[in-house]
Amino acid sequence: MVLDDAALQKFSFIPRGMKDAINIDPLQTGGKLTEDAKRTLLEWGDGYSVCDYCGGVLDLIKKPPIEEFVHSVLPEFLNTDEVRVTHGARESKFAVMHSMAEKGDYIVLDELAHYSSFVAAQRAGLNIRTVPHSGSPDYKTDVEAYATVIEEITRETGKAPALAQVTYPDGSYGNLADVNRISDLCHRYDVPLMVNGAYSVGRMPIDAKKMGADFIVGSGHKSMAASGPVGLLGVKEDYADIVFRKSPTHKNKEVELLGCTVRGAPIMTMMASFPHVVERTRNWYDEVADARWFSSRLEDLGIMQMGDKPHDHDLMFFKAPVLYDISQTAKKGRYFLYRELKQRNIHGIKSGLTKYFKLSTFQVGRENLKYVADSFEEIIDKYQKKE
Amino acid sequence: MVLDDAALQKFSFIPRGMKDAINIDPLQTGGKLTEDAKRTLLEWGDGYSVCDYCGGVLDLIKKPPIEEFVHSVLPEFLNTDEVRVTHGARESKFAVMHSMAEKGDYIVLDELAHYSSFVAAQRAGLNIRTVPHSGSPDYKTDVEAYATVIEEITRETGKAPALAQVTYPDGSYGNLADVNRISDLCHRYDVPLMVNGAYSVGRMPIDAKKMGADFIVGSGHKSMAASGPVGLLGVKEDYADIVFRKSPTHKNKEVELLGCTVRGAPIMTMMASFPHVVERTRNWYDEVADARWFSSRLEDLGIMQMGDKPHDHDLMFFKAPVLYDISQTAKKGRYFLYRELKQRNIHGIKSGLTKYFKLSTFQVGRENLKYVADSFEEIIDKYQKKE
Repeated sequence: MVLDDAALQKFSFIPRGMKDAINIDPLQTGGKLTEDAKRTLLEWGDGYSVCDYCGGVLDLIKKPPIEEFVHSVLPEFLNTDEVRVTHGARESKFAVMHSMAEKGDYIVLDELAHYSSFVAAQRAGLNIRTVPHSGSPDYKTDVEAYATVIEEITRETGKAPALAQVTYPDGSYGNLADVNRISDLCHRYDVPLMVNGAYSVGRMPIDAKKMGADFIVGSGHKSMAASGPVGLLGVKEDYADIVFRKSPTHKNKEVELLGCTVRGAPIMTMMASFPHVVERTRNWYDEVADARWFSSRLEDLGIMQMGDKPHDHDLMFFKAPVLYDISQTAKKGRYFLYRELKQRNIHGIKSGLTKYFKLSTFQVGRENLKYVADSFEEIIDKYQKKE
Repeated sequence: MVLDDAALQKFSFIPRGMKDAINIDPLQTGGKLTEDAKRTLLEWGDGYSVCDYCGGVLDLIKKPPIEEFVHSVLPEFLNTDEVRVTHGARESKFAVMHSMAEKGDYIVLDELAHYSSFVAAQRAGLNIRTVPHSGSPDYKTDVEAYATVIEEITRETGKAPALAQVTYPDGSYGNLADVNRISDLCHRYDVPLMVNGAYSVGRMPIDAKKMGADFIVGSGHKSMAASGPVGLLGVKEDYADIVFRKSPTHKNKEVELLGCTVRGAPIMTMMASFPHVVERTRNWYDEVADARWFSSRLEDLGIMQMGDKPHDHDLMFFKAPVLYDISQTAKKGRYFLYRELKQRNIHGIKSGLTKYFKLSTFQVGRENLKYVADSFEEIIDKYQKKE
């Protein structure tokens, strides 16, 4: 391609079509910016803006109060000892795996772990052993199997796994495993536990110490109303010197973070949204009530919610034979649902899905949720009448 | 700290005091957003916005045209085979080091390399050997020493270094080493060469193949008018399968990139500014002329420019005994310069520096540069008269 001006103009400003839709994609419901965050984004948007205020260490910048935010506010928020801001949950997980394990070591993941946990372990050269779940319809992680798997690895290799991880909640079914029991079991074998809270930190109250989490991971763009990519890593003091070890040649630079991480606007948006984020975690049980209400509305339509029931999280997975049946004869086949929802300004169920899909009710609000449920009902009625 | 609403309000919207200053900090001159990028930032600011359009691989998103940008436009722009968007130059460097070398391997860096190159090599567990420079006043990298250092390592360890790197230009003096000679020497020993173009890609014309660069690294927030953190990694096809290897379990996910990298607004701002960035690299020689003009203005005041002369880049390092002398008796001592410049709405020379400092003239424009040079003259006059 020739880089001429005319050809390049198409990259300049691209409108985002679904910006104002009701978005029930689990990736999106917790990442919508607050008004303060939007203003902040423009104010601090230029390249490396925060670095104007930096004396050499990003998280020690005093004005704007990044130091206070990272070293005082966030540890309090998560109840952990040390926190750093990272490029996202997956980058946090890799930093822990890469610091805590040697190539060839084992890591224990729940089978429901996000793909990026597997890929992060692969990047660190680790062997992965998984803890199974119960399969359909509950997909419940077999918590006791953390002990079995740790014992197996130790027996086979003569060495305990370097790390265990649990996804809290998992990103498919929104199940919240019994993390206290898991940490008890792991600690019985001296295996540190990482909690991937990409869908919990910033949505629901999280207390890392109470959970027994040695590492807690959060996602700014997924769940903290921040502009991505940005995430969090909380570390118990026992491991802080390992994960946040300093460079032998550049004494104030943390090696695992390559010196600095989010050197720009995303950390400022995370801070800007933080008062709202704290507030919404306090109202978490209203969100759970909304999720349960929505789930029961869909169940009335013959769309079954999988996973924990009653459900304790806004992320839910549904099995919808009724929609699948419609797709078999509908014009446009399996794309009918996406199109019908789109016509109603509802976005977030992937194009082409009908039989199984996930969604999130977080911050959508009861009124909009009612509109979404009514829309499902209307769509089903419309196609069933045709038959 | 108690997380009460009143205490948290201070994080909500924080004005950026120096937003409208004339900024000559080398970190900032190439990162100012275009108007299109500002609009784009707001449009795509929410959390994970681009993921609404994703079928599983960020850089294959067709609408907005991220795939075309990453797989067609950027390779053309850099004249390299494969490009990916990363979190920044340091993350690109680490990805290459971590993919191309085993723990314990050697890497050759120029002594002028950015600290993040050292830290990235340390994170990858590599041994570092450096190529020296000539010291004051030229700080010229001893290009021929790439051969000597490679030979030394090979003799001592029985194995050639896994990688060599050159910083083009370096971030202190803005020197452009003879990269063609360096790549010739490295390739003679079958050592692949990484070019750190954090201060060149997006500022000046870059042709990776002509340079003999096996890896080319760029920075969006430093030099491509993009909102950080975001960077580029260009790879010659010989090494693309190594650096961009796929996960054995998740077939479409690139392990070294943890599946996806910049899942949000920064990549959209890089695209939005790109037409302007292409244009400005075409006008690079006007920038060089501005830099030389500014350098000679300061030299007339007794402020000596170090590094290559005549200079070929906007990033310059100055030695200013005249300002240092003033600082010895000035009220506020060594902070006088920062304060005097700040009063004149000029920002970018770190507070407390007088004897040595660096700055950049990039995109500042001749008129503003004249104002900055006049300001230096005025400040010197003012304090010299006092004596």
